[in-house]
Amino acid sequence: MIESAILHIPESKFCFAVKPNEICLRLRISKSDFPDEVKVVYGGKYAYALTRECAPMRRQCEDRLFAYYTVTLKLTDLRLVYVFEITCDNKIYFFSEDGLTEKFDFELSYYNCFQYAYINECDIMPPVEWMDTATFYQIFVERFNIGNGKKDKSYINLKWGDIPDPKSFAGGDIKGITEKLSYLNGLGINALYLTPVFSSVSNHKYDIGDYYEIDKNFGNKDDLRKLIENAHAQGIKIVLDAVFNHCSENFSQFQDVLKKGKESKYYDWFIITNGDPLEYECFASCKYMPKFNTSNPEVCEYLIDIATYWIKEFDIDGWRLDVSDEVSHDFWRTFRKAVKSVKPDSVLIGENWHDANIYLHGDQFDSIMNYAFTKACLDFYAFGTLDVQSFADKLNEILMRNTDTVNNMMLNLLDTHDTHRFLTRVEGNTDKLMSALALTYFFPGAPCIYYGTENAMEGGYDPDCRRTFDWGQEKIDNPVKSLIKRLTAMKRSSVFSQAQAKIFCKSGMLTVERGEYKLTINEKGNFTIEKI
Amino acid sequence: MIESAILHIPESKFCFAVKPNEICLRLRISKSDFPDEVKVVYGGKYAYALTRECAPMRRQCEDRLFAYYTVTLKLTDLRLVYVFEITCDNKIYFFSEDGLTEKFDFELSYYNCFQYAYINECDIMPPVEWMDTATFYQIFVERFNIGNGKKDKSYINLKWGDIPDPKSFAGGDIKGITEKLSYLNGLGINALYLTPVFSSVSNHKYDIGDYYEIDKNFGNKDDLRKLIENAHAQGIKIVLDAVFNHCSENFSQFQDVLKKGKESKYYDWFIITNGDPLEYECFASCKYMPKFNTSNPEVCEYLIDIATYWIKEFDIDGWRLDVSDEVSHDFWRTFRKAVKSVKPDSVLIGENWHDANIYLHGDQFDSIMNYAFTKACLDFYAFGTLDVQSFADKLNEILMRNTDTVNNMMLNLLDTHDTHRFLTRVEGNTDKLMSALALTYFFPGAPCIYYGTENAMEGGYDPDCRRTFDWGQEKIDNPVKSLIKRLTAMKRSSVFSQAQAKIFCKSGMLTVERGEYKLTINEKGNFTIEKI
Repeated sequence: MIESAILHIPESKFCFAVKPNEICLRLRISKSDFPDEVKVVYGGKYAYALTRECAPMRRQCEDRLFAYYTVTLKLTDLRLVYVFEITCDNKIYFFSEDGLTEKFDFELSYYNCFQYAYINECDIMPPVEWMDTATFYQIFVERFNIGNGKKDKSYINLKWGDIPDPKSFAGGDIKGITEKLSYLNGLGINALYLTPVFSSVSNHKYDIGDYYEIDKNFGNKDDLRKLIENAHAQGIKIVLDAVFNHCSENFSQFQDVLKKGKESKYYDWFIITNGDPLEYECFASCKYMPKFNTSNPEVCEYLIDIATYWIKEFDIDGWRLDVSDEVSHDFWRTFRKAVKSVKPDSVLIGENWHDANIYLHGDQFDSIMNYAFTKACLDFYAFGTLDVQSFADKLNEILMRNTDTVNNMMLNLLDTHDTHRFLTRVEGNTDKLMSALALTYFFPGAPCIYYGTENAMEGGYDPDCRRTFDWGQEKIDNPVKSLIKRLTAMKRSSVFSQAQAKIFCKSGMLTVERGEYKLTINEKGNFTIEKI
Repeated sequence: MIESAILHIPESKFCFAVKPNEICLRLRISKSDFPDEVKVVYGGKYAYALTRECAPMRRQCEDRLFAYYTVTLKLTDLRLVYVFEITCDNKIYFFSEDGLTEKFDFELSYYNCFQYAYINECDIMPPVEWMDTATFYQIFVERFNIGNGKKDKSYINLKWGDIPDPKSFAGGDIKGITEKLSYLNGLGINALYLTPVFSSVSNHKYDIGDYYEIDKNFGNKDDLRKLIENAHAQGIKIVLDAVFNHCSENFSQFQDVLKKGKESKYYDWFIITNGDPLEYECFASCKYMPKFNTSNPEVCEYLIDIATYWIKEFDIDGWRLDVSDEVSHDFWRTFRKAVKSVKPDSVLIGENWHDANIYLHGDQFDSIMNYAFTKACLDFYAFGTLDVQSFADKLNEILMRNTDTVNNMMLNLLDTHDTHRFLTRVEGNTDKLMSALALTYFFPGAPCIYYGTENAMEGGYDPDCRRTFDWGQEKIDNPVKSLIKRLTAMKRSSVFSQAQAKIFCKSGMLTVERGEYKLTINEKGNFTIEKI
């Protein structure tokens, strides 16, 4: 056995409670090792020297280097202690905190066994139940649809259908979304993620001037209320975009700092690195987006009040958290408690492009935008840097980054307002787009369709990926749209629910088995969906 | 290179901020690999495709299987992204979120580089400064010393000096400790950890009936106040024992449940598994120690109020947290915030016998009782299951379980009231005891001396390890005591401060280099301390 490949971390994605008396265990070994048997020897913390049970572990999946063995234990004593027993070439090995050994002294195990010392119910991460059957649709509000009505349209400088530049305003608004809810419902969509809707001078509105006002070009609070009421009536959840890393320079508290400098009572709301001339931390290198100082409790309280206000007053169903990885963990912990206490089944989705396990222990986010999944799909379908085998490996590796609970809430996406459109990355090949879409549904988590994907919309990097929706197309059927309808119907009918995804490569085909269904993808990217 | 041995986990003990602009990185590789060069290629998150810097990493230590490369980066842009570059046999490899690759596309690195997205000051774990020069002395209060005065001694059933049984009362009390402060100060001790002092019917007092009262046999609040004032006057910190996992059946709220069953307003304060007849979770199998339900916010508030009360009113310097691993993480997070807001430099030390990294991210404890260190010492000095090489490996492995910040606050101990005395484990061999003591001081963290160790006290497992202190011995010098005095003097004079411990095995000698000093231990356990 390759000893240095073996990995198990207690109280982590390798050992997590899923129910008050149920714990999942994972053990990683080298993919090249095929032990005769892998089992866990477990028991109650205070009786382990005397009484122990054994449970076999199964080889659940493989990635490029490793194989993962798993088991779910149902416990009577909630104080779990355990070691692994691996039989290989007729030799028995134990794997404990002391590593791989040929002997294990159960008498002294209180020093070096693994443990999950007690399952406290409040430490179990609860799933957001509705995420299980959700298909998200991301709307870049400015470009989706202009609602009927007589708003002041003098700010609009882009003709609907023309190619946008960074300063374009095409006129999309909240009312425009409400008017298209039946269309979205017809696609099977049951959750919307909207880019920010709060007061802002930009078209993207990630630089917010007033978090308590709807942007005037997007409508008003009444429009938002109607959207949410209508959406809920049709079984559609609404997730808004929370920009808590930074604000706009127009944000009144920042204006106060600009005016009064150190005398401003909001001076410590921002991360000022020099007082005169004023220098401060900001988003990227955008000085018009000053960064909030979430190490200041006043700021935390202010931002958390915003988050709960829109839930309490408008009944939104969750927040997508912009640039969440640059905001303090301490803030997110307090934030989660506040939000979940107001609406326990609201969802919190971080914008973390990287391995975000540290945010996903149950004290911060429920899930993240799964850009690792995006990248794997790009590598296979667009860049050709993965073959089916390495694609399967990569997908399993991504799943092993987090617990099953988190995986089932991941926001799996092919593209967003921050990337090229996937179809453009695969050079307009709709077969590849459809194959990737099918995978997005078979992969654990909630798929997120970027607006217009159903019409095979194209677009390069920002601002090109933010073109106006091509209305007219919605009446015409096409294979992409048909597939999305088929997949959303499957997702809504719970055929994937509770079923673990089994991902492997066999006979040159990437295979994803999920419940009664099987998705296969060949080296060219062509796919089939079958009943098993 | 053994690829499957390579490990790096972002935002973990492998990547942690130590200052507002300083981050430590660790990379684990196989011990059998000796790359020509290991470096980190790093930069600011939003400029990485264009501008990058390189910093060489040094092979800091080795354990049985792995070598650890480390570097500390001083940053101007606080949004760190990075990959590792390893040169081996004239080939260059990159190690990123995608594993070991021969190429790395910096243009697409926003998908797969490692990152510490932003150093938010409130997420940096601050050291408790005084721990740096602290030597703890653990006192099992009932057995240390009986103070002068006329308390009711009718409860005493053990003659001082006789061997205790589980029900023995010998009469030790708080006043008895105060009277011996100068003695302890003479040893160089500058921190005391006292087993519980609150109202309880047992001799150990881990079953507390009233958390707001000093046990009547131990004295009263005035006695505690005097102890703390006197200790502080001599530069000695006082850490008390917090038993928040469970209470005594005499705890009035539990008595209320016993009387009223489901009608009791304290019913949800405990984890009742059956109402009638009453069944409930408890500590170990001790029904007289019912477990608190810290998933209930009322219970959390009650316990946290206790923790802050003794700090605010008596100015204690921290808490040792009994059975801390069985209490919810959620509780400890709230607990830490409350305690640190009252006294930022108070210390929180968990009783976690196992790898407790998940508790040591800065949101829960500062450190734990380092029983892994205890076990390594037992394996080498007592059980003979480690030789000097594997002992060195083990010590490094223990250090690599946590960040340097945490390591420097670990409570390193050879024995406690819950173990055999170390001297008894090594069959009375004081040379071995002294060697182990020297190591306890050279190892990062704060040494903790169990009362009477300086007199070479012996004792087997509980209750034998809780014998009465052999007064009279304190006037007689002996080699153990002299060594402790020498080591505490070194510790207090900061010769170990800020100096990383370099632990390795060379020419059959375990060597620990720390600042200007070097400790060497041979295969028999004999040691020398030298200036380098």
